[in-house]
Amino acid sequence: MNNKISSNASILIIGNEILSGRTQDTNTSTIAKWLNSIGVRVGEVRVVPDNEKIIINTLNLLRGTYDYVFTTGGIGPTHDDITAESVSRAFGLKYEIHKEAYKILEAYYNPGEFNEGRQKMTWMPEKASLILNPTSGAPGFNVENVFCLPGVPSILKSMLGGLTNKVIGGKPILSLTISLRTVESEIANSLTKVQNDNQDVEIGSYPFFQAGKLGVSIVIRSEDQSKIDNCNSQILKFVNEKKIEVVDR
Amino acid sequence: MNNKISSNASILIIGNEILSGRTQDTNTSTIAKWLNSIGVRVGEVRVVPDNEKIIINTLNLLRGTYDYVFTTGGIGPTHDDITAESVSRAFGLKYEIHKEAYKILEAYYNPGEFNEGRQKMTWMPEKASLILNPTSGAPGFNVENVFCLPGVPSILKSMLGGLTNKVIGGKPILSLTISLRTVESEIANSLTKVQNDNQDVEIGSYPFFQAGKLGVSIVIRSEDQSKIDNCNSQILKFVNEKKIEVVDR
Repeated sequence: MNNKISSNASILIIGNEILSGRTQDTNTSTIAKWLNSIGVRVGEVRVVPDNEKIIINTLNLLRGTYDYVFTTGGIGPTHDDITAESVSRAFGLKYEIHKEAYKILEAYYNPGEFNEGRQKMTWMPEKASLILNPTSGAPGFNVENVFCLPGVPSILKSMLGGLTNKVIGGKPILSLTISLRTVESEIANSLTKVQNDNQDVEIGSYPFFQAGKLGVSIVIRSEDQSKIDNCNSQILKFVNEKKIEVVDR
Repeated sequence: MNNKISSNASILIIGNEILSGRTQDTNTSTIAKWLNSIGVRVGEVRVVPDNEKIIINTLNLLRGTYDYVFTTGGIGPTHDDITAESVSRAFGLKYEIHKEAYKILEAYYNPGEFNEGRQKMTWMPEKASLILNPTSGAPGFNVENVFCLPGVPSILKSMLGGLTNKVIGGKPILSLTISLRTVESEIANSLTKVQNDNQDVEIGSYPFFQAGKLGVSIVIRSEDQSKIDNCNSQILKFVNEKKIEVVDR
């Protein structure tokens, strides 16, 4: 059994389309949930433009700070896809055709369709390890603790399963949600006491609107189920005392 | 007429719920679109946990780098709402009851309902300027170039209108999207030429799936409509030559 508490990671979202608001990032949530399930906590997310210098500087900082870095976006065939070249420079590695990726894409496309644009997707940092793409052929890649994934959410999602052996986490991060028909200010003091009594458990409070009614979801997170259960009991105690309704959500 | 090219901004998303993947951030897109419309470009987004030291360090870095910083989240009444206190410390300002905010919330709630939890939402950095909240009473605040907004998307959205006089941008950032029934690799070379001939225009290429078919959206962005029109003509020229279908999207 894996007794490591957890590893940490950062996510680097590369793309002008996120910074302009045109595209809504959904990859952070997908990657974070998957990482939590294998015992890796996300400590930070950054969104940066398609700018080589900024990508290099940010990547070098993050890969030195976190156990793992996951990048999304910028690995397609067009001029604004500069992630593979930027990662090569960040590591001081040659940017070259990856022979295995070349073979995969050569076989993936019909004869005559493996054009220059598609061949660009086989250029990677030297000695990169491939992350296979069951959806659309073109693989992602990994160099040391950096994992480069595409920006298209459905393709990214299909590639995470292939990383299970490469990303070493710890105990899965468990969570329990208690949803209440109340407002935050009614429970703030009681909840602060529970948090103070359980400092190694993460307790969050999030207001919601559902069917025209206000509510609060309390989220308890820890690697240790017994600590979650303990907080849950303490919270349900004050919830009962205050006669607050627990609701499904 | 405002001839300033544009200002820049960063967005600091504060909240464990985003890093765990439980909550999907939508505020980045909302803020970025609004900023673009008033001529402010978003250069960077960071998501950080509910940790005072990390918030202070990140905020001090961002407010020194960008014209404006917009924070979201952490201004409610519970123990995990630490944005106002962290901003006070980042600026070296007293954290105290804001008299105007106190009056607003005292009038907002029914007699006897303005409890300790709700009063916490009136604690702010000394001399903070209020950002009024037409949705739910509790105001955000601004200190120098830092604007602190709530995390709940509908409330945040309702507060942006009140910032128009406080955030000085430039010419609105315009964009044009051309959607094509093709794949990126078919247009990559031609599009690179257009980008090289128009280096001060931002041209992005984004694959999409629609009704089971693949397509590519090309997005052209600039403050100058004539530059966008010029790129549009150059792109439509090669699109016609290649007999690629332009589609609605």
